[in-house]
Amino acid sequence: MAGTQKASPRERLLDAAARLSYRDGVSIGVEALCREAGVSKRSMYQLFDSKDEMLAASLERRVPRYLTLFTHPDPEAASPRERILYVFEQLEKGAADPGYHGCPYLAALVELKDPGHPASVVAREVKEGLEKSFRAEAERGGARDPGLLARQLLLVFDGASARAGARIEHLDDGLATATATALLDAAGVR
Amino acid sequence: MAGTQKASPRERLLDAAARLSYRDGVSIGVEALCREAGVSKRSMYQLFDSKDEMLAASLERRVPRYLTLFTHPDPEAASPRERILYVFEQLEKGAADPGYHGCPYLAALVELKDPGHPASVVAREVKEGLEKSFRAEAERGGARDPGLLARQLLLVFDGASARAGARIEHLDDGLATATATALLDAAGVR
Repeated sequence: MAGTQKASPRERLLDAAARLSYRDGVSIGVEALCREAGVSKRSMYQLFDSKDEMLAASLERRVPRYLTLFTHPDPEAASPRERILYVFEQLEKGAADPGYHGCPYLAALVELKDPGHPASVVAREVKEGLEKSFRAEAERGGARDPGLLARQLLLVFDGASARAGARIEHLDDGLATATATALLDAAGVR
Repeated sequence: MAGTQKASPRERLLDAAARLSYRDGVSIGVEALCREAGVSKRSMYQLFDSKDEMLAASLERRVPRYLTLFTHPDPEAASPRERILYVFEQLEKGAADPGYHGCPYLAALVELKDPGHPASVVAREVKEGLEKSFRAEAERGGARDPGLLARQLLLVFDGASARAGARIEHLDDGLATATATALLDAAGVR
């Protein structure tokens, strides 16, 4: 693969952990991870205290990309309502990818079933960040109850990502934006 | 445990598979399953073709209990709107249990990441059944677009179950019913 030659063992491990855990689940073995990264187990344990720490670091590393994905390209020109709906439009676009398996942070939480796991801590922070951002937009948009609206939008976001990732729903007809729109309307965000 | 003495090896395996996979995830090992069930691996492979088949059978076995949980106790007296909201009230009640890890069928789908896995097939059927039931109620309740409303309600149901199961949301203030109510109102189901 282009670029991999120059990446450090640490970067190769983090990329492999992100890729394999997203595709196959967080229970992927250390052997498979090291093989994919082309790094020895010995080197891996010199770089990371544990597989759990490596998994957490791999999720953390992708946060900026994730946040950029959901940030409106022209936030000054867009209204709070448009900035919120942009998140759902992006979700719908992402879900159309054949390799889509849902939101990586929600998937990690569902799979780990352990709020104390270092990767769960990272995932929860990302989700809390998204909720805060929805809440701030809801306040700016004049929502009757911004906290409630933000939590409702997260139900839709995570429900849509989980269902589309599991291939029991498709979002290409705008289901997620339509649902978010109904909730914005109900909350008085025009 | 009371009752376990009389249960057949098959029943003990199915119970263990349901319990352990719900608590720890579908990647639990065959050894742990057999130990929990008090059944030898040899016996297990005489009863089931594979761990995958056993997992599918354990999910299938719990379907009637799952459906009963979400069926209004007095369906004749209740309106379609009440029957739909009852599902969300029951979800909220279930999520208050300390051992709650979300909807077992959604969790299996998210974890397996394989629509062709026998357990995914069972889980998908359960989810499709719930969608059909929402759709039928939405039609009876005069929804503008019953199919759309049913899909929206499923986003909320699965988002709420996944988030509450992952301990990043709590439903004890009626978040799920409030969100379903907003969508019922928007769809014209009074």
